[in-house]
Amino acid sequence: MTAPTHRPGAGESGAAHEGIITMTITTDHTDTNGVDVATLFATLDAVKGQPEIATFQFRATNTWIGGTHSRSEFSGFYGATQEMQHAQRTAVDSDHPDVLVGRDHGPTPVEYLLHGIAACLTAGLANIAAARGVRLHKVSSFVEGDIDLLGIFGLSDGSVRNGYQQIKVTLHVEGDADDETLRSLVEQSRRRSAVYDVLTNPTPVVIDVVTG
Amino acid sequence: MTAPTHRPGAGESGAAHEGIITMTITTDHTDTNGVDVATLFATLDAVKGQPEIATFQFRATNTWIGGTHSRSEFSGFYGATQEMQHAQRTAVDSDHPDVLVGRDHGPTPVEYLLHGIAACLTAGLANIAAARGVRLHKVSSFVEGDIDLLGIFGLSDGSVRNGYQQIKVTLHVEGDADDETLRSLVEQSRRRSAVYDVLTNPTPVVIDVVTG
Repeated sequence: MTAPTHRPGAGESGAAHEGIITMTITTDHTDTNGVDVATLFATLDAVKGQPEIATFQFRATNTWIGGTHSRSEFSGFYGATQEMQHAQRTAVDSDHPDVLVGRDHGPTPVEYLLHGIAACLTAGLANIAAARGVRLHKVSSFVEGDIDLLGIFGLSDGSVRNGYQQIKVTLHVEGDADDETLRSLVEQSRRRSAVYDVLTNPTPVVIDVVTG
Repeated sequence: MTAPTHRPGAGESGAAHEGIITMTITTDHTDTNGVDVATLFATLDAVKGQPEIATFQFRATNTWIGGTHSRSEFSGFYGATQEMQHAQRTAVDSDHPDVLVGRDHGPTPVEYLLHGIAACLTAGLANIAAARGVRLHKVSSFVEGDIDLLGIFGLSDGSVRNGYQQIKVTLHVEGDADDETLRSLVEQSRRRSAVYDVLTNPTPVVIDVVTG
């Protein structure tokens, strides 16, 4: 998830939005890359006027089904000073493949991290390109995560980590701009990416266990 | 994704599996928690005999659909010295919600990270409990990720990070064991979790851009 860096003067509507508690101002603006640029800038403007509306909490509820198979559901989240709901409830399954003694009812948990980084960079790229007036034609990415399972198996001498040793994203982008400009859009998306930050920097994870 | 720490003597079948190139030895063993424990130990044994079969690469292919909406597919991966395929191809969508100027065609990229940690801890818990002979009745978790979007909006003075400030997992577990034992199973799952490691420690992410 990434938003463009705000550029003062580019489509702003001034102080009119201060004090609103929803971040989206619905308008009929034409879009670039499927992004309503005027609303995007108005939203950034609203956040500048009322920074507390930028406080969000995302959530997932996971249920064990059996073996290494579990399912998460996403529906509600908190943001813009209120409880909110996604347009639809989404459920996703994870399991381990047969070769790792699972039943392969879905991608492994670590594979979802690869989706996260690709989707975050791509969303940011579309927003940033739209904000800069660059029409994109095509964006795709192939993500590879290298992992040595000696770590999670507890079979290393401690030198092998549990998680990915490296994640590589190969991102293809085509649009109405030269090579240098397209690369700078991707770079700005990386600089502002929430998932890139979580993967490349330590994030505190607290685990609260309730038994019985 | 988590596997139990190998405990020598607990169900091992010795050196018979050395040299095999698939990690799963199909058997008709009864299971605990939906986990085929004998095969799990045989797999760990196989990895001890041939550590290179623990080298895996997971993958996702993401395609931009429009705006902040993209879709990832998971199908192939590398492991146990060979190219492998999941039992089925899985596709997942991400978007930003309306309040963040998206079209809400799916959970945000950062929400998938919350699924990843819950699914990884739960799979590991089921495996570890089975390996230790503890039957679980019920496991569920609620994951909350706190994020201040001033970071990705580029509206902070640099003090607000782009990603989650904290992720909290509230994990409920019920099973045929006392409170202390159940907690120790969760703790061992945390210690061996691939996703926990990726989130709490830095993971290198390389982005290779191809234009035109």
